[in-house]
This record gives sequence, structure tokens and C-alpha cells, in this order.
Amino acid sequence: MPAAGDPAPRARWRLLVAYDGRGFSGFAAQPGGLTVAGSLAGALATVLRLGEPPPLVCAGRTDAGVHARGQVVHVDLPAELPKVRRGRTWCPAEGEDLVRSVNRLLAPAIVLRAAERAAPGFDARRSATWRAYRYLVWNAPVPDPLLAPVAWHVPEPLELRRMAAAADVVVGEHDFRAFCRRPPGTRPEDPLVRRVLDARWCDVSASELADGAVGRLLRFEVTATSFCHQMVRSIVATLVDVGRGAASPAAVHGRLGSPTRAGAPRPAPPHGLCLTAVGYD
Amino acid sequence: MPAAGDPAPRARWRLLVAYDGRGFSGFAAQPGGLTVAGSLAGALATVLRLGEPPPLVCAGRTDAGVHARGQVVHVDLPAELPKVRRGRTWCPAEGEDLVRSVNRLLAPAIVLRAAERAAPGFDARRSATWRAYRYLVWNAPVPDPLLAPVAWHVPEPLELRRMAAAADVVVGEHDFRAFCRRPPGTRPEDPLVRRVLDARWCDVSASELADGAVGRLLRFEVTATSFCHQMVRSIVATLVDVGRGAASPAAVHGRLGSPTRAGAPRPAPPHGLCLTAVGYD
Repeated sequence: MPAAGDPAPRARWRLLVAYDGRGFSGFAAQPGGLTVAGSLAGALATVLRLGEPPPLVCAGRTDAGVHARGQVVHVDLPAELPKVRRGRTWCPAEGEDLVRSVNRLLAPAIVLRAAERAAPGFDARRSATWRAYRYLVWNAPVPDPLLAPVAWHVPEPLELRRMAAAADVVVGEHDFRAFCRRPPGTRPEDPLVRRVLDARWCDVSASELADGAVGRLLRFEVTATSFCHQMVRSIVATLVDVGRGAASPAAVHGRLGSPTRAGAPRPAPPHGLCLTAVGYD
Repeated sequence: MPAAGDPAPRARWRLLVAYDGRGFSGFAAQPGGLTVAGSLAGALATVLRLGEPPPLVCAGRTDAGVHARGQVVHVDLPAELPKVRRGRTWCPAEGEDLVRSVNRLLAPAIVLRAAERAAPGFDARRSATWRAYRYLVWNAPVPDPLLAPVAWHVPEPLELRRMAAAADVVVGEHDFRAFCRRPPGTRPEDPLVRRVLDARWCDVSASELADGAVGRLLRFEVTATSFCHQMVRSIVATLVDVGRGAASPAAVHGRLGSPTRAGAPRPAPPHGLCLTAVGYD
């Protein structure tokens, strides 16, 4: 039992979160911008009647405009949550109550998919062993209104085989300096080594989303132990350049380990990107 | 050659149009609301330097919030379109020029997918022999942010087999008075007979759109020679009631031919609906 004057005991929760990134200046709370973390922490404070929004830690700090279906977040909440009514009795709120109340405030832009008490020592960022993203490309002469929120429209014909070959090149442990924005506080000569576990393109034109639209819907799936800033969008831009015939798969090899971003294409737009899953041991 | 004083000769064009219905008060031009027809006619007037927006006739007058991928429109334009540059010569604009210029103004909310000179006597509405719509239902405990613009979220478990059986009931020629808003100028005792050629549910959960979201994505596809107002959305609401267990497939039979909408569920929301294709002989 805590001594008088001790802070109230806290319990760590693990949240599974989805969002449409278009309305937000990214996940991380920052002054002056509407962020996913700011909105979510505000909703938790409202629902749980906390004095102030609790700090959130996420597995993947998605940029402005990037979507998520499988973002994982941890947050420390009072060990005793406010009571809710179940039939004729009042019980402490549980995960499903949190899900329902938060979604009433934030859905469908932000959806709490699940909330559960975390295992001891769980840290959404540090305990994660891999992150998976997908990127959608709508490859057709004209855009599609229903795909526009989730896919990058590339009108030039793309050669999927070349893009698949180039995707193979990025798999493995490489210095991704030429594919990332340098993190603040690091020197240009510091390598940014990351391990890509899997990277592949699929043609998902037959999917429901593209139904009735004439063109090809291409999906890039990539999994890595971790990513650096803008890494997926830079890889996608490079692979699409290969698909257009503007670069060769071998050129991708040359760019890996290159110390600068010079000559790299502008990163693919954020709205095609979605954090789909995070893995924990 | 037209005599002096004759109106300029006109040519009929056939347009294939897609749109995200969420930003519009429906297809049909109306004062005071932003409509698909108003926006499209305005863009044609700008691009072709017409004195005023040309009247448009569409195959299916979609309601506010309803999407389209295969809307067909006809419009009468000056027989000679403004010239555009091709290499070193100037030629009259063709369909592809119209597509490019209109999309530069309107995409991605409205997309002109194709524009071609129509066959003699073509009428987008009167020549159409069938219309096909699809309706998406996201059947899962929690909403999904990326499906929210295109699918109706139904949290209660739905029994797809019952819904499929009820869909069979609506196929054929029936009086759909109990499923439609009465057209102005008709009497309550007038039947609203329509012929449904096909109606079926599919589970498309494995599709790209639902990828990474936990739940079932259900698609209702329905084709009829023509539809009356709110007919698809009313049918979907009724079939979802059957899926929930709130009505039996046999009850749908009873409602067909019923003279009133009394007791019918509120139509399913517009954003799940999309006009996918229109057929011509």
C-alpha cells in the first residue's frame, strides 16, 4: 500500500490503434498541430477524468498523413479506473469500456481497436522486434476518387517485375542513410543501419477497393526490425523509379550505403503508407 | 453549313465519370448545393470556354454522399472544340484532352475516366438497359478509419447465409414501393415496378482494403434495369436486418409489394453505396 504522499499507483496499458492519417500532423504530440497522440491522450483524459493527458509511447512514430491499422501504444494509467455500471453493479472500467468510450469520442478518424493491461516491463517502442508497413500505388492513366485517400497515383506504366527485383535488393542489413532523413543529433558520417526482414510487391488489382476502377493497384509490403525516418517512402519512390525505367535494380544496390541523399527521388507521398502491424516476442 | 442565326452545330459526347460522393449533395445540379453535375459542367465550361455550363444527363442520379465509379453522362458540346497543340500543329481537342483538362481541375474528388463522341441517338439515361451498384458493409466490433469513407459499419454479428437467402427474394420483377421514396407527382397507389436482374452478397474480407483490419468486409452487388429513389439503400437495410436476426428472409417477401414504407428500417447510409457500371445495348 503506498505511503501517504506517494503518487497514485499506476498500471501500464497496451493499446492497439488505427487512424486515417490525413487529418493529423503525424502521431507524436507536438505544440500547434493536431496529432494522433494529442487526440488520443485527450480522449483518455476525458474518459478517465484525469487531470491532464497522459504521455503516450508508440511503436512507430508515423509522419503527417501516414495511416495506421496496427499502431501499438503504451500508457500508464491509474491502477484503479473509474467505475462503470454492469447490470446492477458498479465495477472498475476494463479494456472494453475504454475502447467503447474512446471510440465514441474519436472514431472513425482514430479507432482504439483494443486495450489491455500490459505484461510487466512492456514498452511499446523498446519491446517491439519488428514493424510492418504497406504502401499502395494506383497505377492507371487517371486517378480514382475512392483510392485517392490511401494510394499514390502513378500514371506512367510500371514494370512490376523490375520493382520486385529491386525490392529484393533492400532486404537484409544495410546502411540506409541515402533513404532517410537524418535524425537530429547525429552526424552525416554516422551510418543508419537497419535490418529489412522482408520486402515485396503484389498486384492486388482484383481487390474490393479497386473493383470497377480500371488500372492496377500495387501493394508494397515491408517488414524491418525498425525503420528510420521516411525510410519506407524513400524506398517506395526509388522502387517506383525502377518500375518506370528511370533507374535499374542494380542502381538501388549502389544507393544502399551511399552516404547522402543526393540524387534520390523525393519520398513517395505519405497517404499511400500504412503501419499495419508491430511484432513483440 | 448552318445558316446565319442558326445555333452553332453541336455534337453529343459520352462521359464516364467517377466520384467520391462525400463532398457533394448528389449528382444532379441544384441551386445552393455543391453537386457533381454542377462541378463537372462548370469544369467543361472552363476548359472549352463555353458561355455557360452545359446541361448534363446521367444514367443514375445518385443521392448526396453516394459514390460512383461507372457513372455515364451525356452532354452536347460545340461540334468544333477549341484547338490544342500536338507537337508542332494545332488540332481540335479530342476525348483525351478533355479528360486531362477536366481532371486537372476536379481530380481526385471527381474524375473523368473517359470521354468520347457518342453514337447517334445515344442518351445516357434512356439508352441504359441496366445499372449496377455495390454496397459495402464493415461488420466488426469496432469501426475502421480507412474503410469509414466507403463502408457502413455494422457492429452486430451478421449471418451472411440468411442475407444471401433474402437477397434471392428481391431478384425478379416486383413492386418496390415499400423500398423507395415516392417520386414527386405519383400517387401512393401507383406501383413502382422494377426488375432486379441480380442481387448477391460476397465476403470480401481478404481484400486489400480490409487488410490488417479485424472483421468482415461484406459486399452487396445488385443489378437492375433501373432503380427507384433510395431503393438499394432500403434493400441493404432490410437485408442487414435479416442478417442481424431482426427479420426473416420470408418477411422480405412480404414487404415486396407492400404499398407503404411503414415498418421498414431507415435506409442504409449513403457512403457505403457506389454506382459501379451502366449497361447499354
